[in-house]
Amino acid sequence: MGQRLTRNSRVTRVRIEDGQPVLDTRADTLTVEEPLQIRVDGQDLSTTMRTPGHDFELVHGFLHAEGVIHSREDVTTMRYCAGAVGPHGENTYNTIDVALTPVADPDSAQSGTLDTQLDPQLGAQLARQPLPIRHVTTTSACGICGTTSIDQIVHQRRHPIVPVTPTAEFVLSLPHKLREQQKTFRRTGGIHAAAAVTSEGRTLVVREDVGRHNAADKVIGALLMEGALPAEEVYLVMSSRASFELVQKAVLAGFSGLVAVSAATSLAVDLAREAGLFMTGFTRDDRFNVYSGALSEQVRDASPAHPAAH
Amino acid sequence: MGQRLTRNSRVTRVRIEDGQPVLDTRADTLTVEEPLQIRVDGQDLSTTMRTPGHDFELVHGFLHAEGVIHSREDVTTMRYCAGAVGPHGENTYNTIDVALTPVADPDSAQSGTLDTQLDPQLGAQLARQPLPIRHVTTTSACGICGTTSIDQIVHQRRHPIVPVTPTAEFVLSLPHKLREQQKTFRRTGGIHAAAAVTSEGRTLVVREDVGRHNAADKVIGALLMEGALPAEEVYLVMSSRASFELVQKAVLAGFSGLVAVSAATSLAVDLAREAGLFMTGFTRDDRFNVYSGALSEQVRDASPAHPAAH
Repeated sequence: MGQRLTRNSRVTRVRIEDGQPVLDTRADTLTVEEPLQIRVDGQDLSTTMRTPGHDFELVHGFLHAEGVIHSREDVTTMRYCAGAVGPHGENTYNTIDVALTPVADPDSAQSGTLDTQLDPQLGAQLARQPLPIRHVTTTSACGICGTTSIDQIVHQRRHPIVPVTPTAEFVLSLPHKLREQQKTFRRTGGIHAAAAVTSEGRTLVVREDVGRHNAADKVIGALLMEGALPAEEVYLVMSSRASFELVQKAVLAGFSGLVAVSAATSLAVDLAREAGLFMTGFTRDDRFNVYSGALSEQVRDASPAHPAAH
Repeated sequence: MGQRLTRNSRVTRVRIEDGQPVLDTRADTLTVEEPLQIRVDGQDLSTTMRTPGHDFELVHGFLHAEGVIHSREDVTTMRYCAGAVGPHGENTYNTIDVALTPVADPDSAQSGTLDTQLDPQLGAQLARQPLPIRHVTTTSACGICGTTSIDQIVHQRRHPIVPVTPTAEFVLSLPHKLREQQKTFRRTGGIHAAAAVTSEGRTLVVREDVGRHNAADKVIGALLMEGALPAEEVYLVMSSRASFELVQKAVLAGFSGLVAVSAATSLAVDLAREAGLFMTGFTRDDRFNVYSGALSEQVRDASPAHPAAH
């Protein structure tokens, strides 16, 4: 299949010059958005609006965030549905069939596939669930599908977080690493990106998608497919804001930090603090906010309670 | 209940001064994000991450976009669940119970509640569905929940769109109207807003939410509760980009135009053109892109095929 990250379309650009509108109609580059239908063991599980490309990673990451799989061994096969064809008989590449590895003894699933350092009280609910008999339809920003129990979400956790205390310089370097490899945004201005960067500054993977949650799922799915979860001492870097669901994905994948270019929400901050995830927001060229965790170095503190000495 | 749009939290601001990080820890304002569980006729339908406030409008708009209701008469009662209490016995205001008006004769539902100018081929599928026996769990950017049939989404339509051909000046005025009344963003920098503005420039309603789709649902729900749908010759103005799902919501609610501050996706453009919805993106102080429809006036055209005379 070809990658369909962008598509050209005739667009009329309007700008005001000397108080008069001036039109310029020409081909412009749009970010592609298409539905991806995820079928698991013959059942429709979800339809998400996503940018095509790295779809298998997206599905791995999505199923991981949903608690359907915990490792690559939980997936027997994953392929584009041969029967999903467009008007000219071509495969749409918009439907993926997943076959899960059968769980021989459901009672042993917990010890077999889960981190053994789990809080015992959480173990039962984190053991792989039988696939629910229902449709779950989600979108490009979906992350809590699969449960209607609100309280469980806040306390859900799979791996202990390995704590990190980065320097300010390191935090500021992360959005640059994202942009360096974010190819599509420069053409369309309309796509999100996510990256996994180690505490040594090595970029493991960068993925783009019209939905920020999809971009995170693609990164997490790529790590899962390489057997690289939990992402200990690794930072999830997001071009977006930090919502609760992104923090949830980061925590479930065992990241040590989440660095967001935009704002953080109240519940995202609560969960990051509770889980021990280092988290920043509004991470720009020369500034950022620390919402959870601490920096490593002694620096000048201008807080009201600690007037800086000059 | 109190409005909980924002919450204060201690945040450490870091900035680089003379090459050195300077910290400033103090109370900062965060956008509140909390789950809202929607129960319809005793069944869990959906859980969405949203900013509290105007929840009844949000639920009306969400159910409208899902095709569960078509008018305010389809809802008998809507109230916060009395049994949803927090650790101190207080109501969480995070669960809403909806009772739908029973449909006396399902066969008459189509002519009774739907626009009579519908394409007959679409009538059957748009008639109010019996509530599906399943869980649909969505998030702050959900809009296509309720169907796993991809093709149907593109062709789904409830009202004919009343065409508009605004002036460039009018289009440029719309984001200003949004910002004038967008109170929370100025404090947190992390919230979306949606507005409904008539072609005469009258702002009907402005709503904010951490999720752009929720903001749109609140606006559409407010219009629905006032019996003001379809939103003929009304523009939906969004602080966000224009995704397929936002275009879908606008089309289903009968808006004539969608004006977005950020980019549009390929599928959003396709649907807007197919439905006859006027749509712009990157609508900034002095420029915008027309993705669907046309402006009203004769203006200087600098397109390659029509060189501007100087």
